[in-house]
Amino acid sequence: MDRRTFLSGAAIVAAGAASACSQDNGTQNGPAAPAVARRRTRRLRMVTTWPAGFPGLGTAAERTADYIREMSSGELDIRVHGAGEIVGAFEVFDAVSGGVADMYHAAEYYWQGRSPAYNFFCSVPMGLTATEIMGWVEYGGGQQLWDELAGQFNLIAFQAGNTGHQMGGWFKREINSISDFRGLRMRIPGIAGNVIRELGGAAVALSGGEIYQALQSGAIDATEWVGPWNDMAFGFYREAPFYYGPGFHEPGAALAVGINRGVWDSLSSDHKAIVRTACRAANNQSVAEFTYQNGIALETLRTRHGVQLRDFSDEIWREIGRVSEQVVADSARNDELTRRVYDSYIEARRVMRAWGSVSEAPYLQRRDMILGG
Amino acid sequence: MDRRTFLSGAAIVAAGAASACSQDNGTQNGPAAPAVARRRTRRLRMVTTWPAGFPGLGTAAERTADYIREMSSGELDIRVHGAGEIVGAFEVFDAVSGGVADMYHAAEYYWQGRSPAYNFFCSVPMGLTATEIMGWVEYGGGQQLWDELAGQFNLIAFQAGNTGHQMGGWFKREINSISDFRGLRMRIPGIAGNVIRELGGAAVALSGGEIYQALQSGAIDATEWVGPWNDMAFGFYREAPFYYGPGFHEPGAALAVGINRGVWDSLSSDHKAIVRTACRAANNQSVAEFTYQNGIALETLRTRHGVQLRDFSDEIWREIGRVSEQVVADSARNDELTRRVYDSYIEARRVMRAWGSVSEAPYLQRRDMILGG
Repeated sequence: MDRRTFLSGAAIVAAGAASACSQDNGTQNGPAAPAVARRRTRRLRMVTTWPAGFPGLGTAAERTADYIREMSSGELDIRVHGAGEIVGAFEVFDAVSGGVADMYHAAEYYWQGRSPAYNFFCSVPMGLTATEIMGWVEYGGGQQLWDELAGQFNLIAFQAGNTGHQMGGWFKREINSISDFRGLRMRIPGIAGNVIRELGGAAVALSGGEIYQALQSGAIDATEWVGPWNDMAFGFYREAPFYYGPGFHEPGAALAVGINRGVWDSLSSDHKAIVRTACRAANNQSVAEFTYQNGIALETLRTRHGVQLRDFSDEIWREIGRVSEQVVADSARNDELTRRVYDSYIEARRVMRAWGSVSEAPYLQRRDMILGG
Repeated sequence: MDRRTFLSGAAIVAAGAASACSQDNGTQNGPAAPAVARRRTRRLRMVTTWPAGFPGLGTAAERTADYIREMSSGELDIRVHGAGEIVGAFEVFDAVSGGVADMYHAAEYYWQGRSPAYNFFCSVPMGLTATEIMGWVEYGGGQQLWDELAGQFNLIAFQAGNTGHQMGGWFKREINSISDFRGLRMRIPGIAGNVIRELGGAAVALSGGEIYQALQSGAIDATEWVGPWNDMAFGFYREAPFYYGPGFHEPGAALAVGINRGVWDSLSSDHKAIVRTACRAANNQSVAEFTYQNGIALETLRTRHGVQLRDFSDEIWREIGRVSEQVVADSARNDELTRRVYDSYIEARRVMRAWGSVSEAPYLQRRDMILGG
């Protein structure tokens, strides 16, 4: 089915969940073609796990929708809704799976309760960097496994953003040995929380908007969120002055668009191409934007807010690494699909790590050696 | 102008250089809309600096064209031509600038003879990585400067691919001190060639297809090309067994689509969005593909072909770095626009390097420490 095909309004309504059709005869933007020849505007609802317009996250969802609208001349008109506008942040999966909404923009590891395999399509401790997860999903067999996983929930999902490297977090007190994690109450979600628990700490799950208050009240001793750009917006430096980096837990967190399978199947081939390509372009922009904006924000944090950067010692890294490898492997023992996802991910990490170890990693080290710290 | 607007064949021919129109009434792919309501197929010619279908380079051009064709339902039908099919590799700039062809896919540093500013939109020694140049061009002011530069040549250009980190090259003899560059005849193009000359070597310009023969005949002692994936295809390991990495000269070489300005201006707003978004998606795929395929190829080179990896010593790196910084700065002295491009690029490098130095670079080092070499 392509642009030349006349779709009746009735056919569109029948095909897609949660779609509303409205006729737009084009009088605002230029001369109208004969009414039967243009497909009517199809409105789709995208629900997200982000506060509306939140920099880098909410804006990545909006950018994806903008690309789709512009490229389809408004034939696909996607309205983006922040967390809580239609459903709560963590209800978007069920909403799209069940057809209450058409698509979501989220981080797939939020659905680890449905399957631990979902962690691997966002980020896992000691896992892939941003460009590596792009390589695995697009060229290393990841997308096929993701299709299989999402298909179990009446969904199809694509990469549509990446935060890049996430920092180790904000701490009220310095972490000088692995024993300093004992009793530490830290906001850290998902499988990385299991690592903190293994180290003797308490992993607390809080949505972004709840973190600052918890730090201020003393309910938590530390938090991770994303990186300098997003972290600065919340002002964590006022309550927890020690900023640890790099982080171990989300070395390149992928964001995703998930689409109701019936809605996806109802799209014409050109509209499918538009959605798929918009997701890839949004992913590209997200990687670019986080790389640049984190640099700008880090400088502001250091020079204007006096933030002190810290790094975990090699001893701490070795223990975190050992525990992380065990926790991630354990997560894949329970079902056959997760096991296959884990095996594919770990094999891709092995292959791309060997390349990174002789290319970008030592280049960055040499560039710093030459240009100064 | 949007999809609803009826464009006559005559109007399209008048608007674009080198465009051919043909009527396609859609009988092959589905029911036809009334003939007046659909825009006719607009055929555009993309000329490239790559051998047709060359992995990662020629295929990046074809992927961009495919995305555009699919998303526009074939309304924009871009035919991709390998180097030499319509014009030679290094004639594509003039061909598109002058309207002989509509667009090119190339590496912008090939046009350094027109302006040294062009180097910065591909890669310069000790410069930005793949994700960093994406950050600078998309969010750090790079695109605006690029628009100004390309505008001088009746062009507009966008990022549409990136090779990622490029290796230091293949050498017949080991390089143990900086003096080993004296008298070395190395195939290395552009501004990086100036660095080799400063070190006492001879930089030779050869197209990809000429390199192997020159190595075999002894006309050159060393060559760089791209990375494991592309280098393996040419079989350089048979003639020059020492493979040096990382490289200093192209830490993340951007590929670009350049478009004749009149052709660009003639596109409707939805077709402009389709072309722009296709370039961004192609860039995303290219970064993903090189990251994965270089890993696969490196393993094959090591295990099947017995390739020996080498790294330049810190002493060599310091001297290469010092000379590179000088050569790149010198390249920007001649004209005011290049100076502004240089200043913007170097400032972006400063900002993003500070971020990379506390995030991905040390993460990669720790991950290797934990998982083993």
